[in-house]
Amino acid sequence: RNLHLLRVLPFRMDSQNQYCVSRPIYSTRAFEHVNEKQVRETKTIKERLRNSVKCSPKLIPQIIKKFFPILNWLPIYQLKQWLPGDIVAGVTTGMVCALQGLAYSLLVGVPPVYGLYAAFFPILTYFILGTSRHLSVGPFPVTCLMQGAVVLSLAPDELFLYHGNTTGVNGTATLVVNTTARDATRISIATSMTVLIGLFQFGMGVVQVGFLVRYLSDPLVGGFTTAAALQVVVSQLKLIFNVPTNNYNGILSLFYTIGDIFKNIKQTNMVDLIAAVLTIIVVMLVKEFNTKFQKKLPVPIPIEVIVTIIDSGVSYAMDLSTNYGAGIVRTIPRGFIPPRSPDVSLFSSFGGPSFSTGVVSYAIAISVAKVYAAKHELIVDGNQELIAFGISNIFCGCFSGFVATTALSRTAIQESTGGKTQVAGIISALMVLIVIVAVGPLLQPLQKSVLGAIIVANLKGMFMQVHDVPILWRKNKTDCCIWVLTCLACIFLGLDVGLLTGVIFELGTVVIRTQFPTCSTLGNVPSTEIYKNMKDYKNIIECPGVKVFKCAAPIYFANIEYLRDQIKHTVGFNAVRVFKKRNKALKKIHQLIKKGKLKVTENGLVPVAPLGVDNEAFERERDPEQVEGGAQQEVNGGARPAAEVEVQVDWSSTLPVSVRIPKVNIHSLVMDFTAVSFLDVMAAKSLKLIIKEFMRIGVNVYLAGCDDEIIMKMESMGFFDEVVNRGMLFISVHDAILYIKMETDSENSDDSMAEKVPETSKPS
Amino acid sequence: RNLHLLRVLPFRMDSQNQYCVSRPIYSTRAFEHVNEKQVRETKTIKERLRNSVKCSPKLIPQIIKKFFPILNWLPIYQLKQWLPGDIVAGVTTGMVCALQGLAYSLLVGVPPVYGLYAAFFPILTYFILGTSRHLSVGPFPVTCLMQGAVVLSLAPDELFLYHGNTTGVNGTATLVVNTTARDATRISIATSMTVLIGLFQFGMGVVQVGFLVRYLSDPLVGGFTTAAALQVVVSQLKLIFNVPTNNYNGILSLFYTIGDIFKNIKQTNMVDLIAAVLTIIVVMLVKEFNTKFQKKLPVPIPIEVIVTIIDSGVSYAMDLSTNYGAGIVRTIPRGFIPPRSPDVSLFSSFGGPSFSTGVVSYAIAISVAKVYAAKHELIVDGNQELIAFGISNIFCGCFSGFVATTALSRTAIQESTGGKTQVAGIISALMVLIVIVAVGPLLQPLQKSVLGAIIVANLKGMFMQVHDVPILWRKNKTDCCIWVLTCLACIFLGLDVGLLTGVIFELGTVVIRTQFPTCSTLGNVPSTEIYKNMKDYKNIIECPGVKVFKCAAPIYFANIEYLRDQIKHTVGFNAVRVFKKRNKALKKIHQLIKKGKLKVTENGLVPVAPLGVDNEAFERERDPEQVEGGAQQEVNGGARPAAEVEVQVDWSSTLPVSVRIPKVNIHSLVMDFTAVSFLDVMAAKSLKLIIKEFMRIGVNVYLAGCDDEIIMKMESMGFFDEVVNRGMLFISVHDAILYIKMETDSENSDDSMAEKVPETSKPS
Repeated sequence: RNLHLLRVLPFRMDSQNQYCVSRPIYSTRAFEHVNEKQVRETKTIKERLRNSVKCSPKLIPQIIKKFFPILNWLPIYQLKQWLPGDIVAGVTTGMVCALQGLAYSLLVGVPPVYGLYAAFFPILTYFILGTSRHLSVGPFPVTCLMQGAVVLSLAPDELFLYHGNTTGVNGTATLVVNTTARDATRISIATSMTVLIGLFQFGMGVVQVGFLVRYLSDPLVGGFTTAAALQVVVSQLKLIFNVPTNNYNGILSLFYTIGDIFKNIKQTNMVDLIAAVLTIIVVMLVKEFNTKFQKKLPVPIPIEVIVTIIDSGVSYAMDLSTNYGAGIVRTIPRGFIPPRSPDVSLFSSFGGPSFSTGVVSYAIAISVAKVYAAKHELIVDGNQELIAFGISNIFCGCFSGFVATTALSRTAIQESTGGKTQVAGIISALMVLIVIVAVGPLLQPLQKSVLGAIIVANLKGMFMQVHDVPILWRKNKTDCCIWVLTCLACIFLGLDVGLLTGVIFELGTVVIRTQFPTCSTLGNVPSTEIYKNMKDYKNIIECPGVKVFKCAAPIYFANIEYLRDQIKHTVGFNAVRVFKKRNKALKKIHQLIKKGKLKVTENGLVPVAPLGVDNEAFERERDPEQVEGGAQQEVNGGARPAAEVEVQVDWSSTLPVSVRIPKVNIHSLVMDFTAVSFLDVMAAKSLKLIIKEFMRIGVNVYLAGCDDEIIMKMESMGFFDEVVNRGMLFISVHDAILYIKMETDSENSDDSMAEKVPETSKPS
Repeated sequence: RNLHLLRVLPFRMDSQNQYCVSRPIYSTRAFEHVNEKQVRETKTIKERLRNSVKCSPKLIPQIIKKFFPILNWLPIYQLKQWLPGDIVAGVTTGMVCALQGLAYSLLVGVPPVYGLYAAFFPILTYFILGTSRHLSVGPFPVTCLMQGAVVLSLAPDELFLYHGNTTGVNGTATLVVNTTARDATRISIATSMTVLIGLFQFGMGVVQVGFLVRYLSDPLVGGFTTAAALQVVVSQLKLIFNVPTNNYNGILSLFYTIGDIFKNIKQTNMVDLIAAVLTIIVVMLVKEFNTKFQKKLPVPIPIEVIVTIIDSGVSYAMDLSTNYGAGIVRTIPRGFIPPRSPDVSLFSSFGGPSFSTGVVSYAIAISVAKVYAAKHELIVDGNQELIAFGISNIFCGCFSGFVATTALSRTAIQESTGGKTQVAGIISALMVLIVIVAVGPLLQPLQKSVLGAIIVANLKGMFMQVHDVPILWRKNKTDCCIWVLTCLACIFLGLDVGLLTGVIFELGTVVIRTQFPTCSTLGNVPSTEIYKNMKDYKNIIECPGVKVFKCAAPIYFANIEYLRDQIKHTVGFNAVRVFKKRNKALKKIHQLIKKGKLKVTENGLVPVAPLGVDNEAFERERDPEQVEGGAQQEVNGGARPAAEVEVQVDWSSTLPVSVRIPKVNIHSLVMDFTAVSFLDVMAAKSLKLIIKEFMRIGVNVYLAGCDDEIIMKMESMGFFDEVVNRGMLFISVHDAILYIKMETDSENSDDSMAEKVPETSKPS
């Protein structure tokens, strides 16, 4: 039986700091370590039995319900109470959804009708597979922009130029973009990418790695979405001003695009610009009004829809396109495109961006879903959501839509107007369907700049996140740095590279935080067993000759060197140097004894002849290093004298040779390991070395408060041997200190602090 | 004055588990928290004063000595004792160094003479600037190969083809490589890269970020160098077989090269192959002999030198090049090339590889230096080493050498043959100098395949590292995974990308280890204040109604969700669901009271009429979720009843309504935070939420053993408010438990475990 016993002291100090056996000595049985494997095995067998007994009759329906969460709520759907709310919410959200679909398609770089598909299809599957009841599934500007970046880089306008029939002003044939071919290619890319994103999400859901999304912490997502909002605005400026720009990608593309816009700003179409500015102002004002009177309004004013209708009307009436050269949507065909399989050959060209887009889209959806789940005390299953979104995206991609996630604003509308379940989602899909099969063509005269303006006006919330920065700074500098760095990286390097940079930086901060842990010297709060940081409290005392060192982090390859420095700093000397100097002194003493200049007497070493210049010269010759510290040494024993002559040197007395040995004013070092959560191989090796370095100069090292798991790790890593043995483990700092005191006292030494730990002392 | 007081209990249990005031009540003063800033300020001022007083007279020489470590040892150089060893070591190492320089130049892809420069120049500066006394500075195969990859990718043979004057077999002009131009370009690239590497290292040394090298942990470096050894062998196969191959780079290049060699294996030059195989066998055997009789041999046999001389002689005598088409070194010019400035325009094309090469070369050097520093109890200064290698590389690069680091084998020779200081290094440089100015041309007939074979034979030690894998696996699975993954990544993806992958994976493991921390339920070792994992020990008991939860990791964005699940698992119920169900039950009770079917009496709620089918139906209609757990509830109070009617529901009795509420069989939850080393903003937010969720269902939460630093962090993050207040902090789990027991007892409740924490209870 493998007994993992820590040394527990049966002795406690009473209030007079005297040792008394105030408690029964802990019996070994009371504290017996159970063979862990056995326990686990018994447990798993038990659990298996219990599960099999308990679950088998319900197992199949439970599994089905797990994969089709709709079965959890549709059977208990409360028609009277939930349906009215769902209908109102569905209709409102549906209109917004259709419109946002149209608008966001511009971000992807495909004709607007595909945005309608993206707003329609994913809802159908999510209705069945999703676990959130409030999410409004559909396109989101950030993910659309990420897809758009891929689409535009793989199918830029330049690839589709041909010599048009029209001749330019100076008689040369102008180059015209073959928009039909271009759009077909782009749609193929966008939809294939959507399928790939879906596959990634589905795969992640199947292998249950939804936890990876947790690396996208709040500050990171905050910085990312703020930068994304800026990217979206810049991408829409082109439409708002209706000026031509080149397609840029990657590093600094944001600034190149802005440069292009300024270069061509003279070509601005004033009709488009005015319409856009008006739209932005009106939409933002009405939205402000909506939030202000949220409680008084039965339904928020669907201002985007109103603006769109008005603009379509005006544009149609005044024929803005032909008369003023305004950029309009132009074609919104009725009905659907038959499903088609994705172009698998393209997958390799956008593997990376697809993965990042998939992760981002899921991260956005799950964070929004969790907000509402918490509000309504419902449960959202992260991995099922991955599967749901994965299948939704595969489905949607096959029907020529693009990637689905959610938007906080849209979900807020759906929830605030009374949406209780995904029935609201289905009704909103119905609204989109109506637009697709009937209303669509009516929107053909709509100005693109108005759509762009609607996108911009919807980004206000994302920009407002900038206000978080000073708050974060006050709360936690590291988190604030993550926010700012992610934001800047996303602005300068593009969204996917920026996000990766942010994640790596964020994980780096975790490493750095453990790499430079707070190490402290502990002192005893008088007449208690409490040990606290010496720096933080007044009136706490150190046990004379004992240092208590605490490390508040896991110990591993990156921080072991730092820890070594910290220990050196705590004890005030370098153990290696002390050992070296002592050895040197010993050698000299041996030589002096051989020469007959020193004698070993009962009182220690006594010089036979006065030592003078001779020795000085000797010293100069052999001491190659800088030396510091006093000559007075206080520690006795410990350093094993060289085998040749057995000389017991009292390091605390003035030595007869002039070697300066750094001061060692402790005899014990207690390392508080309560906050050490793991050790790796390098750490174990170095720690052992550090302990041995102290041991050989007569400083005993004790490890206090080690977790059982760490002790087991230490054992498997061969940490313990004859010198570094399990006898140095104590259950708490106080136990170690009491033991040290006991040992020191029992030796009855007068003022030398020497002591020897009996290696055979049994754990009690 | 900001008092950071944890609640400490003046009460201790005696051995009969009865409360007794056995210790004086801790006075507040004794435990006063010092305003930390003040302390720090005082300290820094003090330190500054002390430093200024202490150091000023010695300051300037100290600084000079810091930057020119030679001043530390040259003045005390012990001619008689050290010089003989240094001379023997220097001569031996010098010959090996010259030869390895010649050989490794083939890895870089430049003519052999440049390898001699690389073996000569860096020693000169390192002699002055380096802190290690035993390092044999010079080229190392891995870094040479990394440089070679860049050189070959930027200046492949194909760039230097021209139509030669010689006509091929079938009368067409053959394409010939302009070797002069090619070599000039390659040298320019290699030396510029060396300068850039030096600049990187120097910069890192100046900003004191030597600690970054710690990320290259032992397992990582082990995997990396093993893969590198394989890469080196494959790169030398071309020379050993003397067959043409194309230059490949990046992913899978190793396998393409092997493919090429097999394709052209029929063109093998047998003379070269035989010479190489013989060399490998002889060199490895003699090296084995050297290590076996290390103690008996005064100096290891310089077998490489002997082999080289023999081969040069044989090759010259038999004119292997013309007679058998053997590949020979051909030209080794005498003397030096004048220094020239690097081609700065090239810097941008190898920024990344230069950085990684610089880090690797430094990492190898520092790890070897540390091995010997530890052996001889000397100190190596990491940042000074960076500066020394930086300047050495800049210097060496200007004189047409390539990157300098060290080789474990060469340093081992230098140290084992008696090298004491860098004087041995200077003497070895002298040997190289002799080769450069005199002996060089004699080596012109040397076969390249023999040089390649010498490289391969020297890699044995690096391949032997494979034996570490099973040992690592037994010690620590994670570290073993790092080794294997880094090795595979370096083999498949190339050295620099592989190294990056390895580092990211390694840092990932740190994150993962903190992301899934070991969480445990603690129990009390009877009649002690010790709390241990329930799973690990027999006979330890849980305080009834109290759960002690321990988390052994920092709490931050990535693990907060996991922690929440673990807490849920520990307590055995979902606090949110309990609250929801209770609210539902309350609502029903209110409705029943309104309907007159229930009455509030002194004994609780009493049904007026029997409740039956009516209620059942009601239940079915409103309970949308799966329910589990028994109907018996044991907790009283806590959940604030809805404002409308004040009803005190006793959750422990059978409820008059058939809502099934999950069992809550605890009244207190103690979280042991001793092992929590930091908190971030997200963690604080979530933790607060978790605590509140428990509070509102009547479970009191206590935090035990929080570090002062964490409490300060919590405060700055606004963690505490009216509900979650500082009263829940206890200095240890035992204090919290005692407090809970006291509170429970003082309420004199019979069997309901209800209790209220007085919010105003002052810290004692």
